[in-house]
Amino acid sequence: MKQPLRIALAGVGTVGAGVIKLLGANRDIIERRAGRPLAVMAISARDRQRESGVSLSAIDWVDDPLAHAKRDDVDAVVEVIGGEDGVALALARETLKRGKALVTANKAMIAHHGLELAACAEKSGAAFKYEAAVAGGIPVIKGLREGAAANEISRVYGILNGTCNYILTTMESEGRNFAEALGEAQAKGFAEADPSFDIDGVDTAHKLAILASLAFGTRLDFPTIAVTGVRHVTAADIAEAQALGFRVRLVGLAEAGPEGLFQRVHPCLVPADHPLANVAGSLNAVVAEGNYVGRLFFEGHGAGEGPTASAVVADLIDIARDEYGPAFAMPVDKLVTLAPAPGGIRRGRAYLRFTVADRPGVLAEITAAMRDAGVSIESMIQRSAQATGAVLLVMVTHIGAEHCVTDALVRLKGSPNMLRPPMLMHILDV
Amino acid sequence: MKQPLRIALAGVGTVGAGVIKLLGANRDIIERRAGRPLAVMAISARDRQRESGVSLSAIDWVDDPLAHAKRDDVDAVVEVIGGEDGVALALARETLKRGKALVTANKAMIAHHGLELAACAEKSGAAFKYEAAVAGGIPVIKGLREGAAANEISRVYGILNGTCNYILTTMESEGRNFAEALGEAQAKGFAEADPSFDIDGVDTAHKLAILASLAFGTRLDFPTIAVTGVRHVTAADIAEAQALGFRVRLVGLAEAGPEGLFQRVHPCLVPADHPLANVAGSLNAVVAEGNYVGRLFFEGHGAGEGPTASAVVADLIDIARDEYGPAFAMPVDKLVTLAPAPGGIRRGRAYLRFTVADRPGVLAEITAAMRDAGVSIESMIQRSAQATGAVLLVMVTHIGAEHCVTDALVRLKGSPNMLRPPMLMHILDV
Repeated sequence: MKQPLRIALAGVGTVGAGVIKLLGANRDIIERRAGRPLAVMAISARDRQRESGVSLSAIDWVDDPLAHAKRDDVDAVVEVIGGEDGVALALARETLKRGKALVTANKAMIAHHGLELAACAEKSGAAFKYEAAVAGGIPVIKGLREGAAANEISRVYGILNGTCNYILTTMESEGRNFAEALGEAQAKGFAEADPSFDIDGVDTAHKLAILASLAFGTRLDFPTIAVTGVRHVTAADIAEAQALGFRVRLVGLAEAGPEGLFQRVHPCLVPADHPLANVAGSLNAVVAEGNYVGRLFFEGHGAGEGPTASAVVADLIDIARDEYGPAFAMPVDKLVTLAPAPGGIRRGRAYLRFTVADRPGVLAEITAAMRDAGVSIESMIQRSAQATGAVLLVMVTHIGAEHCVTDALVRLKGSPNMLRPPMLMHILDV
Repeated sequence: MKQPLRIALAGVGTVGAGVIKLLGANRDIIERRAGRPLAVMAISARDRQRESGVSLSAIDWVDDPLAHAKRDDVDAVVEVIGGEDGVALALARETLKRGKALVTANKAMIAHHGLELAACAEKSGAAFKYEAAVAGGIPVIKGLREGAAANEISRVYGILNGTCNYILTTMESEGRNFAEALGEAQAKGFAEADPSFDIDGVDTAHKLAILASLAFGTRLDFPTIAVTGVRHVTAADIAEAQALGFRVRLVGLAEAGPEGLFQRVHPCLVPADHPLANVAGSLNAVVAEGNYVGRLFFEGHGAGEGPTASAVVADLIDIARDEYGPAFAMPVDKLVTLAPAPGGIRRGRAYLRFTVADRPGVLAEITAAMRDAGVSIESMIQRSAQATGAVLLVMVTHIGAEHCVTDALVRLKGSPNMLRPPMLMHILDV
């Protein structure tokens, strides 16, 4: 039996405690698969007193996470502190610089600093792994980096945030409005007290940037992702989408093509027979389309103690086995830069919801704006005036350039007939 | 840039030709991901004249596949000849013995000789990889060997044969009977002229044995798999299952527990809201349940030139990257032997279809047999006498020990009221 892989754990929150529990509970099978034991030598956390639910007495406790990187008795550092920079980034840099392996679940840090860290890992020969950063327990980093590696991948997309998916599917199944569903998600621990990173789509965008880099062999490009969250999705949107044969999902979508790199996070209408339509609750799912493999679909738990710990320890096992290589599937200097695809030239169908005054001429104003912007309407539903006097008008457009739809909305901006801002959602026809 | 990985290809049928096409079409991205070029040095095939659709003029053609293993200018041999022994096995042994990497899509050979080959690879330090052998382009070997490696896996199951799934879902969507659907599958190239390996479940069993070994850390155990194919599934079964809220799928299922190793290939009733119910046409899908990750679901194309070539080349890229290890996730001597779980003690619901004579006392005979065997009935449908005078009787049992249901059928054996042998399908309540 080889020497143990000696691990330091920075952060003993949900994920860190999960890693310790998992390493204890599955010790035998892990040791057989890894070819050697995985031993936690040291831990650090902001609050020593916090109840982690696991016994830490046999492990060396240190106050300064950066000390992990400097220990001679540590081969691999697990960073589950979080935050795009600060202590997490300092620890990641120091760990890799000293040639120690780094395992992290920190998508924000990778989205912002992933290439710098990968270059640092290349220089020192260290492993840099982050399966837990995207889609939790689903081995989708590995699926793209290795499983689909023979393919030119043209598109990768998915449901990457369990909080949003829980909210949207609860609205769908229970007829709740957004605020109620968010409250339920918070009560059940599926949403943070401050849920903005999740519901505004930023978390999904972090993950999408990572998937796109792996899928296309391109440099990480988080800043150019167009991000819209789910705050403005109403119960009426969910119901009308269902009536039209769709489900509403927050989808991160990236495409590489002659126009460049297209990356968007947006609530989408997903046809009911699409695999993403069946992804319910807090599950995550990823689709990748390769030119030889066709469509690959992965689904599982994207967050939580167990699934995230599973991904972290899978990375540690790869390291223990000495089966690892460049973090973004190839050396950083082989990643290409694709210009962001110009907005609006992408073609597709769109869903539009208007909340308008119940008076003559409103429909004529809207349809004229559509016509003048070159938008062709595939189907339309008008619901009779509500108690408030507002009329709900829902349209699905034919396939067309996306800028036409946004042009139409610009034409309607400021119209006194619009009682609420119109809602635009793209339709996932892929 | 490192030296090319030098490849010999044994077999230039659909998969072999696909590998050559893929290596040409995706040369740039593969070289970036693999860190070096992948170069085909030599090929062999039974019939040189066969139109493979690719240009082979620049590649050295040899008559004897075994010569690949002996060449000094070859690092990796791709075996896509097929067959559980014969030339394929001789080539695999010789390749690994000489320390060269072996990549194969040959599930029959692995199911029968995988442990011998893995031991041979360990001895010489060679890579032995077979992603294409199970579920084609879906990286499920990697998903179990690495992605879910941190977990105790209690159950792995899936739709592993595209031919059967095409037949069953065509019967479902088109109302065809089995023979018609098989004929369509053959006409479209989804079924062989002699389809027995597929439709009798043997191909699924080969794949299941491999998945079970990876999932549970157990020795391959193909001979003890209970195998039933899809020949006896009727249009009526499909329709009645649908009426009851189920789809019929050929499922390979393996479980490890205190009773031992349970492995079965069987047409199953899958609840309509289960992920496997949405797997249509020739797609494959695999579910693995880990104690930390929960349920993982993988879906994609399980066969055909492109997906299979994608998996073969993914293996070659892993080898080029030097990212490989024990073929069954751990050294062969670490794999444990689980006794086959005794048949019948597993608990579940079952679907039973009787085709009986339209005369008094038949229902009493059947229900008495059920009662005497300890089977409790959850729901029952009787369809009025058909033109033939036969009555269709369909039952779903409550959860109970499976041996009770088979006991009941034994009691009814030989009854003159049974116009056709009863059909038993288990219900996938997992």
